[in-house]
Amino acid sequence: MKDIKLASGAGKKRTRIQVGRLQVGLDFIVIAGPCSVEDETQTVEVAHAVKAAGANMLRGGAFKPRSSPYAFQGLGLKGLKILAKAKEETGLPIVSEALDTRDVVWMCDYVDVLQIGARNMQNFPLLKEVGKTRKPVLLKRGMNSTLSEWLNCAEYILNEGNADVILCERGIRTFETYTRNTLDLSAVPAIKELSHLPIIVDPAHGTGRISLIASMSLAAVAAGADGLIVEVHSNPKTALSDRDQTLTPLQFSEIVRQVRSLRSFMEGLN
Amino acid sequence: MKDIKLASGAGKKRTRIQVGRLQVGLDFIVIAGPCSVEDETQTVEVAHAVKAAGANMLRGGAFKPRSSPYAFQGLGLKGLKILAKAKEETGLPIVSEALDTRDVVWMCDYVDVLQIGARNMQNFPLLKEVGKTRKPVLLKRGMNSTLSEWLNCAEYILNEGNADVILCERGIRTFETYTRNTLDLSAVPAIKELSHLPIIVDPAHGTGRISLIASMSLAAVAAGADGLIVEVHSNPKTALSDRDQTLTPLQFSEIVRQVRSLRSFMEGLN
Amino acid sequence: MKDIKLASGAGKKRTRIQVGRLQVGLDFIVIAGPCSVEDETQTVEVAHAVKAAGANMLRGGAFKPRSSPYAFQGLGLKGLKILAKAKEETGLPIVSEALDTRDVVWMCDYVDVLQIGARNMQNFPLLKEVGKTRKPVLLKRGMNSTLSEWLNCAEYILNEGNADVILCERGIRTFETYTRNTLDLSAVPAIKELSHLPIIVDPAHGTGRISLIASMSLAAVAAGADGLIVEVHSNPKTALSDRDQTLTPLQFSEIVRQVRSLRSFMEGLN
Amino acid sequence: MKDIKLASGAGKKRTRIQVGRLQVGLDFIVIAGPCSVEDETQTVEVAHAVKAAGANMLRGGAFKPRSSPYAFQGLGLKGLKILAKAKEETGLPIVSEALDTRDVVWMCDYVDVLQIGARNMQNFPLLKEVGKTRKPVLLKRGMNSTLSEWLNCAEYILNEGNADVILCERGIRTFETYTRNTLDLSAVPAIKELSHLPIIVDPAHGTGRISLIASMSLAAVAAGADGLIVEVHSNPKTALSDRDQTLTPLQFSEIVRQVRSLRSFMEGLN
Repeated sequence: MKDIKLASGAGKKRTRIQVGRLQVGLDFIVIAGPCSVEDETQTVEVAHAVKAAGANMLRGGAFKPRSSPYAFQGLGLKGLKILAKAKEETGLPIVSEALDTRDVVWMCDYVDVLQIGARNMQNFPLLKEVGKTRKPVLLKRGMNSTLSEWLNCAEYILNEGNADVILCERGIRTFETYTRNTLDLSAVPAIKELSHLPIIVDPAHGTGRISLIASMSLAAVAAGADGLIVEVHSNPKTALSDRDQTLTPLQFSEIVRQVRSLRSFMEGLN
Repeated sequence: MKDIKLASGAGKKRTRIQVGRLQVGLDFIVIAGPCSVEDETQTVEVAHAVKAAGANMLRGGAFKPRSSPYAFQGLGLKGLKILAKAKEETGLPIVSEALDTRDVVWMCDYVDVLQIGARNMQNFPLLKEVGKTRKPVLLKRGMNSTLSEWLNCAEYILNEGNADVILCERGIRTFETYTRNTLDLSAVPAIKELSHLPIIVDPAHGTGRISLIASMSLAAVAAGADGLIVEVHSNPKTALSDRDQTLTPLQFSEIVRQVRSLRSFMEGLN
Repeated sequence: MKDIKLASGAGKKRTRIQVGRLQVGLDFIVIAGPCSVEDETQTVEVAHAVKAAGANMLRGGAFKPRSSPYAFQGLGLKGLKILAKAKEETGLPIVSEALDTRDVVWMCDYVDVLQIGARNMQNFPLLKEVGKTRKPVLLKRGMNSTLSEWLNCAEYILNEGNADVILCERGIRTFETYTRNTLDLSAVPAIKELSHLPIIVDPAHGTGRISLIASMSLAAVAAGADGLIVEVHSNPKTALSDRDQTLTPLQFSEIVRQVRSLRSFMEGLN
Repeated sequence: MKDIKLASGAGKKRTRIQVGRLQVGLDFIVIAGPCSVEDETQTVEVAHAVKAAGANMLRGGAFKPRSSPYAFQGLGLKGLKILAKAKEETGLPIVSEALDTRDVVWMCDYVDVLQIGARNMQNFPLLKEVGKTRKPVLLKRGMNSTLSEWLNCAEYILNEGNADVILCERGIRTFETYTRNTLDLSAVPAIKELSHLPIIVDPAHGTGRISLIASMSLAAVAAGADGLIVEVHSNPKTALSDRDQTLTPLQFSEIVRQVRSLRSFMEGLN
């Protein structure tokens, strides 16, 4: 882990990042929302639902990194405007993914947290670009990325002057096919010992199966995660992407309740 | 998962396996002990220590599958006699690994649970041989094994007439090098939905780092595991194998306390 | 690669292993035959066909390591007798896999080369048992095995006094799903620099696709392999195992011709 | 492989791409040069050396995707001007990597082939941007990318109107640590059956070891590759990046000679 100067943990205070009224790294945060922003009605509806269920931030993709060029690529600026509208209505801070260096500056007018997706973890110009902004960055682990490579990517952002990096474990690619990826929960305590940065978990991309999300959300809390990010849609069957891993508001509400209860228990455990 | 008839879960009651006074699959079990049985004094001392700390069974290797032929290969029969002595003194049931079909029958005189290690998961003659005994079998997941292959191996045992198979997730091999393996905790809820067999977790082999064992033990409980198996040695620095992942009795005691507290909490969570 | 004393290459002459009239490690060898021995007619027919096409040894499984207990498990002793008959008729030395330590001694009456399959690479009692025989051993690489682990397994055999180990690269398990495994041809020159043992390649298990076998056979020769092992069946569609990667005698004949031509060219290349 | 319309091979003529006087896909091409462009003297010297040794194109990085922000990041525009100078002196077409969508248009003034590196394989805005140019694109396989994902990335480029995509296998990430990556040569015949696009091989990144490059280059030719790309430096020990896998001009010259000889042989093989 040599050369990881700013992101390494040795002798440093744990980082806390203010987003809205919460401090990521201190308060347990739950980020939820649709995989893709599809239209205003859907987005605002989901935003109200996840807020009611206890979410702290709204996620939603305006730019979608899709394997095929023929898959829905996201609404772009229109999607960001819809997210801004949802924020206006619910007060939830917005998390959305940036794909292109050319979009980063103007996206800051619409989002509260800039997300770097797994496929772009080592998109170094993009890391430098978000490092120049004053927005917190949610940096997902690449699906074939070691912990060392991941922290080096955080280092790219920190080195540009932006200290607010939230790491997100979202599953790595292995030979197993039952799950979409293999969620590496050991990354949570490992990052805690290697770095001062907060780390949250994405149990939906990590497993790709609705039936496993609740258990893995609870396991993430027990492992010490600082939060969760999940996909929620009013009607997952009609979602334009990631249908197999998207929760209904009811399923989500149930998970949030259990997760927050477990978090309280863990805080009292010694 | 076709062809998995006996191990599959559909429409079946969850399996409970009596070992001593406990029912694996109902009671949360903690199996602990040295990686290798080294001598009687060490083994009996560790047995008393893990019992005092709350362990339910004693593990200890008499036959050791070592990468190099020049590494300590275990004490064999002498080791099993030492384990029997430790059982006599503490009452703890014994879990020990079988490597060779020729040893299975006579090992049953000394052990309460026959362990099949990760390297032998697809040693089909060995699976058939333990399937012919009346001893519960602890079947570890191969380090490159899919869930489907693993359940097929359980099927080999069940198909010989032995219904008492306990599965054990112990980490899979991935590109990550910070941890020795990648502990796949999603296997816990996945196995719960695919099979009626109990599943426990080995956080020591799964991570290879003492500093990660406590967190991953707690995460395993939250994920729904039926128990844990860990390595404990009075003086890990002098252990003949697996020094980097072996707990002291004190560290172990602390983990058991937290784990049992969390288990109680989880049973009340709904 | 520490502790690899006997298998390591430093300062040693390359090993040559006499099998029939050929020297493995000097002569390029082609081993062919059915995945499983099914009956005498089939086996003798295939034996004649592969001999006519230029094979140097006959392979055929009497004990089959199958993922499911309900799949065809091989004919056992009857299968070995059939192989002996095929040898009597064609003169081809026999290569067949041992699965159980209890079978090794008596199998030596029927086979010329004992094969250790990928799943048993780290079955240490089995390695020791074949190490005690006077038969050459074909040691396949485990599908999640590093080169270092593989050479340590050769060391187990050599350490028992059997110097005749032939290594076989047969593909490793990765995330790719188009091929059954990922054939790691870099293992060929890597083993040549790490060890004095001969190494052959199995392009059938390595790819799992008939359409890729010819190209990968040629690539193996160019990489410096000492031979090939492939599956051939008179009527692959009716084979009891590995249908998707089994060649017809005609396809095999075509590959042998090209492979031997390339081998001659490579010997003249400098 | 559904949704791969333009890149799929069914019923289409194999693509040939004119670069300088050669047709990639018909003529065997060798691309060589330093990992990073360091200064004019070094670059022009290497350019002359690789041309003399039989290279067809000059590679050299002006923008370097480095794991650490503190590693040499490349000379940028200055590096491209040096490459242009080397082209002027030797006539070799230039291959150089683009990292940022903002650089693509103006880079076209300096390079003949735009390279997309492994880390950017799924940088979709970058793929679209190079798809809008009239320059051939060298698209490296991501180190955790399936063949299907790779061809979908080619599809992104083709779908923008740029038909000239050259694929490049450069090794995938596996558990093996002896080699830097695992070079997947089966990708060569697999791509030939799935697509009409030419495919070349990078044996340097694929293995990370100079001692394996010659063998794997020959194996790539035998597998049917349309060319090779390697790193050459006048004094590899002083190179600013990738020292362990960079050839001297003499080593390179020897490999080119053998490779071209084998290619001629393969063209006559039937």
